[in-house]
Amino acid sequence: MSLRRKQIPGGLRDYLPEELARRRALERRITEVFNRWGYREVVTPTFEFVDVLESQTGYALKGSTYRFFDPDGELVALRPEMTTPIARLVSTRMRTELDPGRFWYLANVFRYADPEVGHRREFYQAGVEIIGSGSVFADAESIALCIDCLDGCGLRGFGIDIGHMGFVNGLMRDIGLEDRVSSAVKAALLRQDLVGLKSIVGELGLSKRDNERLLALGDLRGDESILVAGADIAGNSEQALSALDDLKKVVSRLRSLGAMGPVSIDLGLVKNFDYYTGVIFQGHAFGVGYDICGGGRYDNLLAQFGYDSPSTGFAIGIERVLAAVEQGNPDLLNEPRTVSGVVTFEESLEPVALADTKRLRQSGIVVEVELDARPLDTIFERAVRIGRSFVLSYSRGTDGLRCDVFVRGENREQIASRLREVLPSRRFFLSCLETDHTER
Amino acid sequence: MSLRRKQIPGGLRDYLPEELARRRALERRITEVFNRWGYREVVTPTFEFVDVLESQTGYALKGSTYRFFDPDGELVALRPEMTTPIARLVSTRMRTELDPGRFWYLANVFRYADPEVGHRREFYQAGVEIIGSGSVFADAESIALCIDCLDGCGLRGFGIDIGHMGFVNGLMRDIGLEDRVSSAVKAALLRQDLVGLKSIVGELGLSKRDNERLLALGDLRGDESILVAGADIAGNSEQALSALDDLKKVVSRLRSLGAMGPVSIDLGLVKNFDYYTGVIFQGHAFGVGYDICGGGRYDNLLAQFGYDSPSTGFAIGIERVLAAVEQGNPDLLNEPRTVSGVVTFEESLEPVALADTKRLRQSGIVVEVELDARPLDTIFERAVRIGRSFVLSYSRGTDGLRCDVFVRGENREQIASRLREVLPSRRFFLSCLETDHTER
Repeated sequence: MSLRRKQIPGGLRDYLPEELARRRALERRITEVFNRWGYREVVTPTFEFVDVLESQTGYALKGSTYRFFDPDGELVALRPEMTTPIARLVSTRMRTELDPGRFWYLANVFRYADPEVGHRREFYQAGVEIIGSGSVFADAESIALCIDCLDGCGLRGFGIDIGHMGFVNGLMRDIGLEDRVSSAVKAALLRQDLVGLKSIVGELGLSKRDNERLLALGDLRGDESILVAGADIAGNSEQALSALDDLKKVVSRLRSLGAMGPVSIDLGLVKNFDYYTGVIFQGHAFGVGYDICGGGRYDNLLAQFGYDSPSTGFAIGIERVLAAVEQGNPDLLNEPRTVSGVVTFEESLEPVALADTKRLRQSGIVVEVELDARPLDTIFERAVRIGRSFVLSYSRGTDGLRCDVFVRGENREQIASRLREVLPSRRFFLSCLETDHTER
Repeated sequence: MSLRRKQIPGGLRDYLPEELARRRALERRITEVFNRWGYREVVTPTFEFVDVLESQTGYALKGSTYRFFDPDGELVALRPEMTTPIARLVSTRMRTELDPGRFWYLANVFRYADPEVGHRREFYQAGVEIIGSGSVFADAESIALCIDCLDGCGLRGFGIDIGHMGFVNGLMRDIGLEDRVSSAVKAALLRQDLVGLKSIVGELGLSKRDNERLLALGDLRGDESILVAGADIAGNSEQALSALDDLKKVVSRLRSLGAMGPVSIDLGLVKNFDYYTGVIFQGHAFGVGYDICGGGRYDNLLAQFGYDSPSTGFAIGIERVLAAVEQGNPDLLNEPRTVSGVVTFEESLEPVALADTKRLRQSGIVVEVELDARPLDTIFERAVRIGRSFVLSYSRGTDGLRCDVFVRGENREQIASRLREVLPSRRFFLSCLETDHTER
């Protein structure tokens, strides 16, 4: 095989150690919050039957899943999101665990998209599902938990917009729109295309009042007072009024949870998956041009798998939050560097040096062993380059075993005393790794 | 969609919270060892170009990868193993980091197999690659690290067989076997099919001596003394003699590393991937009928990607080690249970109870909030069933706010004092969750 120009397929990526360490730090922060709120992790297969995965994801993912045939001749696809697999899992295997079940996941998902505009085709999501509670307090918990996660990541400056499928749907039903028109209105709202919305609505020949009510969907965004404005345009729609009542309760609960800070109400909010039925939300980071999280209530999804159970949840886009956090504070996710070093030795001292290496590792110090018996200068240069804090060299001096420790920078006494503590019977000779070793 | 008989494709599986927690504990134990030895994590895409993935995996995976076309019309496949992707990654993006590079991964891989015999089609591997050292000490490090990981998992009773591709290949070349015959001999050794080996060798019309030398491959397994027996049948093959010399050095280094305990030499060992060129090994757990780990040297793989660099590494099968550890000690991987509880409250006490909930979570206690305002009995029953250690109920008593704590089992005083510590201003009334609450 010759060297290819493109080494990996479009839209995919590798993670090298340094960036990955920051991603892992972010993931740990999020999943620790999930655990503290009483959620438990589940894992599902990377691919599943197409008719399971696409049962209610709707137009947003139509034609954008990676499909193939498995060895049994079944049509399968890489999962494009995690809510449907978890609904399938809980419906078929965990019914007795509910009342409600609180689950979290951290998983890669796969979607076709145009990689030219920065979209990834494989990306990572951390999220939760609360399965088995129809209470709006479950929706409020989901939103507050999402906010706690983003806070926990160290993200500064983000907003959460909350809406309700019942408001948009109730209003459109009250006005008497056909399904085809409703879909077009929702698609325009999803794109935040107010010009498109105006053009669709303008062609319907509605009363001036209904015209205004529909166009208001593009504009009903702000603090709680929006709920009052919403009541004005809800008219007699019980569905829309009930949605406003839900949102009022969610706001009150969020206030008790100390989570109203980043929240706005957006009564024109709609989502890209068909399965949403109630309270919905999405989050964005200030200064980056994309959503970072989103979710909502999906009361009819589990019934598709034979288990009728109301549910709600959300997903956080790991790569997007990572980018937003690093934009605000590039060093925030760099973990404190562990003490780490390289051990090298004269051949005859192998047993001694390697026994010491084992003890150093057991004490929590990261130790590499020099494998190629290279000159000390080469070992030093590499150790500095890859961020090791010391080089420990075993040699036989005139008066017995000699351990030279070459230490980097300002922590030198601290590292030396750590080594002496683990290996009290060794005689250490201390030098500074970066400047002194040439004078040795 | 109607409920399917088969909910997920054959050979795949879900992980429910309890088993998954044990798998995570196992993974943590392994990756902590990787880190202590100075290895750093990398992540590659779940699927890649077929001609990259299959460049040297050879006959073992031919026709057993999941292939499909990506949106750019390129033929791609789900990765069947991780060594090739990491070789591709390092060759193209990390050359300056080497001398050598030590990398680890924890990843799912995908292979067709017959799920009837218990093989999984998606499974998890933890492994390392040492890239850029041709020293046999790198091979010894790889083997010792693998043993340290298995020890760290708490696995008792496992064996590691070490061999060398150069011994088998050198011997066959010395005898003058054609490629076709060599492949058949190796396939028989891979299956450990000694009857098949005998039948292949019997048809070759070799001298009695060469006949014996080939058949000995099926039998040269044991302690270090096997290396002496190996020298007898190596004859004049420099390749085979050099392989024995490598193995001698590996054994000596493993002894210095305190890692010879589980090791045997098997001069007839061969591996299922074409890319192996030198020292190879595989591990098995006593009492379970399958390999649990394996690896070896692959000095020509990176050259396929334009970067000629000697390398070695191994992979551990997570599910297999998990099964072996749980067979030996079912409770070993159960983490100590965190203190966790459920908070419920009268509606008017929502702000107080939820502020307390936040403080309890911040102190590291896992807290769920009751969302559906159910009767205390229902909440108790569920809390016990899902393993929560307390229920905390807020009510307004005759003389002000009252916090009833219902605690499970023997840790009751300990949990109560933990709650008092975090919430010193609350008046707690303590009851036993399992027996006393009906008499409240």
